Amino acid sequence: MAKPSPTHAGNPVLVKLGGSIKAIREAKGLSQESVALVSGIDRSYFGGVERGEYNVAVINLEKIAVALGVSLKDLFKK
Amino acid sequence: MAKPSPTHAGNPVLVKLGGSIKAIREAKGLSQESVALVSGIDRSYFGGVERGEYNVAVINLEKIAVALGVSLKDLFKK
Repeated sequence: MAKPSPTHAGNPVLVKLGGSIKAIREAKGLSQESVALVSGIDRSYFGGVERGEYNVAVINLEKIAVALGVSLKDLFKK
Repeated sequence: MAKPSPTHAGNPVLVKLGGSIKAIREAKGLSQESVALVSGIDRSYFGGVERGEYNVAVINLEKIAVALGVSLKDLFKK
């Protein structure tokens, strides 16, 4: 399982994206465990994505979007 | 410079995103060279992103969006 990327942890773009993912997840009443399971992403990695610790790539983002039932575009606030 | 990721090259999500980036770039009359230069991304890597060859991560996408003068959200079609 990937360790937090110290270089990127806390990057404002990642923190904003992670916050958006968390807000969508919570609005749908889903747990981190269930979204991680459905998306096939490691649970603690997913938690780190929500905290803005990982410079997550598009294919994992797509998996998360599908698990949340939204489009990739929806993960990004304007 | 990263070699094309055979695992991901041609992935529909990446091809769609790359096509969207290319369409925005061309609509603004920008060259790959100029966008790569402004975003600080290797020119041939950027070409590969447009062709859907790389599973590009968020921070590079943000750099590309800034260089194109759009938001991250705008890079993703609905």
